[in-house]
Amino acid sequence: MTEAVLTADRILEAAEQVLRRFGPAKTTVVDVARALNVSHGSIYRHFPSKAALRDAVAQRWLHRVSAPLQAIAAQQAPAPARLKKWFDALIAIKRRKVLDDPELFATYHRIAEQAGDVVDAHVHELVTQLTQIIEDGVREGSFVVADPRASAAAVFQATLRFHHPVHAGEWLKPGIDEDFATLWQLLMSGLMKRP
Amino acid sequence: MTEAVLTADRILEAAEQVLRRFGPAKTTVVDVARALNVSHGSIYRHFPSKAALRDAVAQRWLHRVSAPLQAIAAQQAPAPARLKKWFDALIAIKRRKVLDDPELFATYHRIAEQAGDVVDAHVHELVTQLTQIIEDGVREGSFVVADPRASAAAVFQATLRFHHPVHAGEWLKPGIDEDFATLWQLLMSGLMKRP
Repeated sequence: MTEAVLTADRILEAAEQVLRRFGPAKTTVVDVARALNVSHGSIYRHFPSKAALRDAVAQRWLHRVSAPLQAIAAQQAPAPARLKKWFDALIAIKRRKVLDDPELFATYHRIAEQAGDVVDAHVHELVTQLTQIIEDGVREGSFVVADPRASAAAVFQATLRFHHPVHAGEWLKPGIDEDFATLWQLLMSGLMKRP
Repeated sequence: MTEAVLTADRILEAAEQVLRRFGPAKTTVVDVARALNVSHGSIYRHFPSKAALRDAVAQRWLHRVSAPLQAIAAQQAPAPARLKKWFDALIAIKRRKVLDDPELFATYHRIAEQAGDVVDAHVHELVTQLTQIIEDGVREGSFVVADPRASAAAVFQATLRFHHPVHAGEWLKPGIDEDFATLWQLLMSGLMKRP
């Protein structure tokens, strides 16, 4: 490959494959450069440090989670149904990642643990999407909440067991879907306008 | 010490001190026997394996969490106030353990991760205490729930971020108490009878 076509995207693509093969602890910028057949200097022109490259890889991975959720948040459906669809999608995406490739999931979990700011920004983005849905619900008259952003954060935190990677070991337990259904009913009962 | 006075309690007391010093990976039954100045055979008479001793240590530690909570669950106060007091106590106990001795907390967390059945029984016990409070609330007419045990489990799971050891890193974040207050209001709004 000539360096002229070495885009940030090509580097991230290669970094993902290298990380997948060697794991985050053993991967170096030199490994990524070698996989692309370029000098490590040309990688540093795009990513000034290994940490910057790692953060960009984490961001790309998390964007694959947040992008389809953003599409759901922006739909026109009634807020309560949209909120349920959003969480069903989040949980399905996370479970699929664990089931399809548990090792890659563990690798990304370790990367994300080191990329704290990127993860914080990701959670902030997801809570912003939830805020949008809850605000729509208040406008529609289906939800009654004083502070939509605080309620969005509360609903996100209340459901951590079903989507936070530290709880991935519980996602295949029997009864997990019934547990979510009961919790969801409780949360909706808390958000919905009383008849 | 003569073996005649070697009770299970004395062994567990010694095992805790040895675990604290060496950590769970390096502690052996022989170390515990040495600390008590007895043969390891006399330990095995009380605990047939290292796993049995480890489980008993975990159980003792977790009992120190559940016992004061049981006292709150059995009080005569109105259910909503009692439920809040129960969670405030759970969160305070967990935070105190982390702050007072982070290394010992990490040690016990590693022990608990290996003692899955003991932890499951502990969570079952806590959810049973919560069920008792919620059933009282239904009888009083303050809560409206179809299945008190399912709701108890849901409230416990919804608050994991504030008491599950995997989230201990977040307990000192600014805003954590406000986060809990918002979540609590949402959960209470879901449980309470509508006026």
